[in-house]
Amino acid sequence: MKSVINIGVVGLGRLGSQYARYFTSRLPGARLQAVSDVQPGVAKALAAATGAPKAYVDYHDLVADPSVDAVVVMTPTKLHGEVVIAAAAAKKAIFCEKPLTLDLTEGAAMEAAVAQHGVFFQLGFMRRFDRAYAAAKQKIEAGVIGTPIVFKSTSKDQFPPPVEYLRPSNSGGLFIDMGIHDFDLARWYLGEVKSVFSVGGALAYPEIGTVGDVDNALTTLTYASGAIGVISLSRSGIYGYGISTEIVGTKGTLQIGYDRETAILVMTENTIAHDTVPGFYERFEQAYLTQLQNFIDNVLAGKPAPVVCADGIGAQKIAIAATRSLHSGRSEDV
Amino acid sequence: MKSVINIGVVGLGRLGSQYARYFTSRLPGARLQAVSDVQPGVAKALAAATGAPKAYVDYHDLVADPSVDAVVVMTPTKLHGEVVIAAAAAKKAIFCEKPLTLDLTEGAAMEAAVAQHGVFFQLGFMRRFDRAYAAAKQKIEAGVIGTPIVFKSTSKDQFPPPVEYLRPSNSGGLFIDMGIHDFDLARWYLGEVKSVFSVGGALAYPEIGTVGDVDNALTTLTYASGAIGVISLSRSGIYGYGISTEIVGTKGTLQIGYDRETAILVMTENTIAHDTVPGFYERFEQAYLTQLQNFIDNVLAGKPAPVVCADGIGAQKIAIAATRSLHSGRSEDV
Amino acid sequence: MKSVINIGVVGLGRLGSQYARYFTSRLPGARLQAVSDVQPGVAKALAAATGAPKAYVDYHDLVADPSVDAVVVMTPTKLHGEVVIAAAAAKKAIFCEKPLTLDLTEGAAMEAAVAQHGVFFQLGFMRRFDRAYAAAKQKIEAGVIGTPIVFKSTSKDQFPPPVEYLRPSNSGGLFIDMGIHDFDLARWYLGEVKSVFSVGGALAYPEIGTVGDVDNALTTLTYASGAIGVISLSRSGIYGYGISTEIVGTKGTLQIGYDRETAILVMTENTIAHDTVPGFYERFEQAYLTQLQNFIDNVLAGKPAPVVCADGIGAQKIAIAATRSLHSGRSEDV
Amino acid sequence: MKSVINIGVVGLGRLGSQYARYFTSRLPGARLQAVSDVQPGVAKALAAATGAPKAYVDYHDLVADPSVDAVVVMTPTKLHGEVVIAAAAAKKAIFCEKPLTLDLTEGAAMEAAVAQHGVFFQLGFMRRFDRAYAAAKQKIEAGVIGTPIVFKSTSKDQFPPPVEYLRPSNSGGLFIDMGIHDFDLARWYLGEVKSVFSVGGALAYPEIGTVGDVDNALTTLTYASGAIGVISLSRSGIYGYGISTEIVGTKGTLQIGYDRETAILVMTENTIAHDTVPGFYERFEQAYLTQLQNFIDNVLAGKPAPVVCADGIGAQKIAIAATRSLHSGRSEDV
Repeated sequence: MKSVINIGVVGLGRLGSQYARYFTSRLPGARLQAVSDVQPGVAKALAAATGAPKAYVDYHDLVADPSVDAVVVMTPTKLHGEVVIAAAAAKKAIFCEKPLTLDLTEGAAMEAAVAQHGVFFQLGFMRRFDRAYAAAKQKIEAGVIGTPIVFKSTSKDQFPPPVEYLRPSNSGGLFIDMGIHDFDLARWYLGEVKSVFSVGGALAYPEIGTVGDVDNALTTLTYASGAIGVISLSRSGIYGYGISTEIVGTKGTLQIGYDRETAILVMTENTIAHDTVPGFYERFEQAYLTQLQNFIDNVLAGKPAPVVCADGIGAQKIAIAATRSLHSGRSEDV
Repeated sequence: MKSVINIGVVGLGRLGSQYARYFTSRLPGARLQAVSDVQPGVAKALAAATGAPKAYVDYHDLVADPSVDAVVVMTPTKLHGEVVIAAAAAKKAIFCEKPLTLDLTEGAAMEAAVAQHGVFFQLGFMRRFDRAYAAAKQKIEAGVIGTPIVFKSTSKDQFPPPVEYLRPSNSGGLFIDMGIHDFDLARWYLGEVKSVFSVGGALAYPEIGTVGDVDNALTTLTYASGAIGVISLSRSGIYGYGISTEIVGTKGTLQIGYDRETAILVMTENTIAHDTVPGFYERFEQAYLTQLQNFIDNVLAGKPAPVVCADGIGAQKIAIAATRSLHSGRSEDV
Repeated sequence: MKSVINIGVVGLGRLGSQYARYFTSRLPGARLQAVSDVQPGVAKALAAATGAPKAYVDYHDLVADPSVDAVVVMTPTKLHGEVVIAAAAAKKAIFCEKPLTLDLTEGAAMEAAVAQHGVFFQLGFMRRFDRAYAAAKQKIEAGVIGTPIVFKSTSKDQFPPPVEYLRPSNSGGLFIDMGIHDFDLARWYLGEVKSVFSVGGALAYPEIGTVGDVDNALTTLTYASGAIGVISLSRSGIYGYGISTEIVGTKGTLQIGYDRETAILVMTENTIAHDTVPGFYERFEQAYLTQLQNFIDNVLAGKPAPVVCADGIGAQKIAIAATRSLHSGRSEDV
Repeated sequence: MKSVINIGVVGLGRLGSQYARYFTSRLPGARLQAVSDVQPGVAKALAAATGAPKAYVDYHDLVADPSVDAVVVMTPTKLHGEVVIAAAAAKKAIFCEKPLTLDLTEGAAMEAAVAQHGVFFQLGFMRRFDRAYAAAKQKIEAGVIGTPIVFKSTSKDQFPPPVEYLRPSNSGGLFIDMGIHDFDLARWYLGEVKSVFSVGGALAYPEIGTVGDVDNALTTLTYASGAIGVISLSRSGIYGYGISTEIVGTKGTLQIGYDRETAILVMTENTIAHDTVPGFYERFEQAYLTQLQNFIDNVLAGKPAPVVCADGIGAQKIAIAATRSLHSGRSEDV
């Protein structure tokens, strides 16, 4: 068995180049072997900065490189399908950033390619590797809260991304772009969701409405088991990045999340104040690292992936149904 | 103008007798003049204990008593209508505990009687008088969070009441019996609700399902303004009584609530723990007092009531639509 | 045995008149029978407002009144001695507000008078009746934290009282006027203090230095048992009234206190803020009531008082030694 | 100017080898060039694991290596002096882990060597680089709390180290071994300390007393400015690693610290609980990294060191005086 796997990272945007740096140094068992980016010069510059031996513009070259053991797919979502399928065909181990795909047909094709070629595939829902979310899973499995019966999860971005990004043809819309993590957690903790109902609007930023998306929405979930849930999404967190989840069980409740970044209280006349969490990177950096380490360890040890295509498809189906419900005004089956 | 009003309390259950004691001593401007309860001996015993001059078995006698200035209606809900209408006809000032009525036709009759006789009428939604909830209202009106766009409120009882009590023909069902406070807050902070959608089930206590009620439910709200909201109700709080509300605005958010009763942390090996709020009385005792003082002050000063029949009817209509939605599986207009 | 005791309150300042109102209505087993205050008209007005049958200017008349069962001593501290001794001679049950006395010789005389006449005497250290402080005592006795070995307590007033009040000849100085509660807790939880060492200064309000007092001070304690402690006192809390105590044991730690008055968080751009506790009355109102109810119940049931002269003297001795240490710059025996 | 400095780490214990790994990968501007450790094989193994080109057993060889630009001194404290003086003579930039030295004469010699050879020297008080502690410094300098007048700091280890380690001839005793960080913060925020007074004992672990040390202690500080402070040290945190600091100013207060490691609340019947911070490494990992990055950036940019020999000596003098006071029972000048 190999003791180190050679990683090739495809797509060097903000998170892709960050991952490349992680593989350089912070993740025992991995070596950054190759990087690729369609923008000329980007891969070369990152290779120089990190010492990665190979730099490509065309991802096909990276996928074809025999020195690459594993492909980490960090491209825009619409390219996930072709890169994953090519990497599977090339018999590489694959890590693919979330969301799996915006297109369920493509998702099925990806799942089929992974199965056909028998390659290792892991999907990137990093929240599952956050210490608090992971602890919640363990406590549920240990029976601490009895049977989980209500799931509630909130995601708030402090400010919205540029309106053009939000156009649903690009981002997939609020439920897919932002809610996918919550929909994944909804399944992970309580199982399959049967139907959803959404309300929402462009309430804080009317310009978001002009491109066909909403900035605040609420989706109720009905599980196959009869359990219920609600996902709350907001582009207008304003105070900060607010991620919190509650799982109500028959014997107790778990609450996950925090809203303070720096451990200092400022206490002035009649007031006590603290700062807030600015963004996803500050909140989840350790989870990203833990997730990638888990990927490496699984590949090296021949263990199955904890998050697979079916999870990406499962979350996506809920997000799509939630979007459909917003427009139909009716409960929609997942 | 009178400087003290003589109070008659009708219905001496747990909260009714507590109110009677409050009027005896803790509420400047009021004097407990009469009590009545249909159970023989109850009014007499309480009159003896509190020094109230008059004790009646039949509320009609209390309402007819010319020494009584104001009638405080604490009977079971199904009697609210006839007592309020009788008290209005007798030209008494009226305080009526929530919910106004389970029957909207009766609610309209109550409202009409109050209007016809020109009497003062105040409805008891005590949460509006809780310091934190009142502070939230002030901050919203002061523009601290901009325009409110999302309303979220959770009520959890630690344990359910006896199953027999929960029979919807008796209690009105979860949305009315327990959710009425949250539906009132929903209107108070953000205005009129246009439609609702509910999911729920007898998830923790199957026996609650056998009498036709649910123990956990989620209701999304769509406001006439386009704003959205969600109400979360649970009979299986288990850890304690959990009341929390969040109001998201375009410039900030308010979060109301707390989960610790006693200001002590117990810090033992690897763990820090505290107690929880046991019930509504511990959480809202001060709000009850503030509410009754407000009633007294309004009557004495000739000021309008801050909570009126229309508020009771407004909250009730949402609760009824929420119940309807649970059964229809569809969004229901309020 | 009597079922109600007739109370006479001597000294109708802010807290004295508040206590009188409590006895009127909120404390089962007590009846406000008489009030006295040396300021002409004060007792009469309060009697009129509360319905107390008797009003006196001279406390001797109240003490001599055979209809009074128990005397509650709320005068300025310098009169505690003579009122308590007179009440003891008149065979009244006695409740005396803290501090017992500024003068240890007088304290011994009070203790002797109580013993000689065999009367019930209870001293008012209300913090012992605060729910959190009482819970801490129970948890220690239940062995939750093992053997207590370090005691830390902090008292902060938001702003100082008028400088003239602070003149040590009047107030006794910071350690006595403000620290007496903490010194009592120090003894209550961990036993007798052997020696103390103080540092301090008029650091925030130089004018406090001009009358011979300090506005911030720290006193370390060495217990007879070898345990250690520190009391932190401040007249410059600024943010609010800050009372907190920590007890470190061999198996765990207890932390008592809170710094938020209203259960609401205001979350605006990059900041989350809440209010603070304004003063002792807001923090300890319930403790005052519980303490007086305990006094009444003890008198009615013939139970011994939980706080006696020796406790007042014990706390006072520490406060005096702490003051002496501040001036000597040396550790001082208690 | 160089853009990367070549680092040599001397002493590869737990923290030394961790630092070496940091220099390998997580600290832009640095390259791990050499490691040395007196234990045969340790340096070689770490060099193999990290790719460091050079491995030495004798630190003199590392110091003499012309390819090494900067020496990071991570040896046991008693060797700090000779390594720093040798590195200074070799004209290397130096980073030295705290404490500077147990011996003030040696400290003066180290300071003189650094000055004589004109080399860059930075001392490792990592708490100054913790986000919360750094934010506190900025807020004080920005005048947020007015003039700081009271300093309070607490350090609790969850459990004591082995008794043999605690022998004061080895560790320096509680005030030096554990308190040095708090004494440094005391100086950093409020300036020079004039005198101290300590109490303490082997209260939780009598065996610590048998080697001449204490496990709990309190030291009051009197500053040259008149300000006051208290340092609380404990080897019996039990619940976890507890680091908290409060700075009281004339216009407000800052509180630094937290006691929860994982962002999850476990809410079961009548109880809400969370975990605790296990140790210094979990609490301060980011501070260690920020500190080393600051060192690298300072060396590269030719900026002065923010923490120098005088700071190590200053903190040490307070710790020594605190130890002396514990034994003398008197206030001791620093």
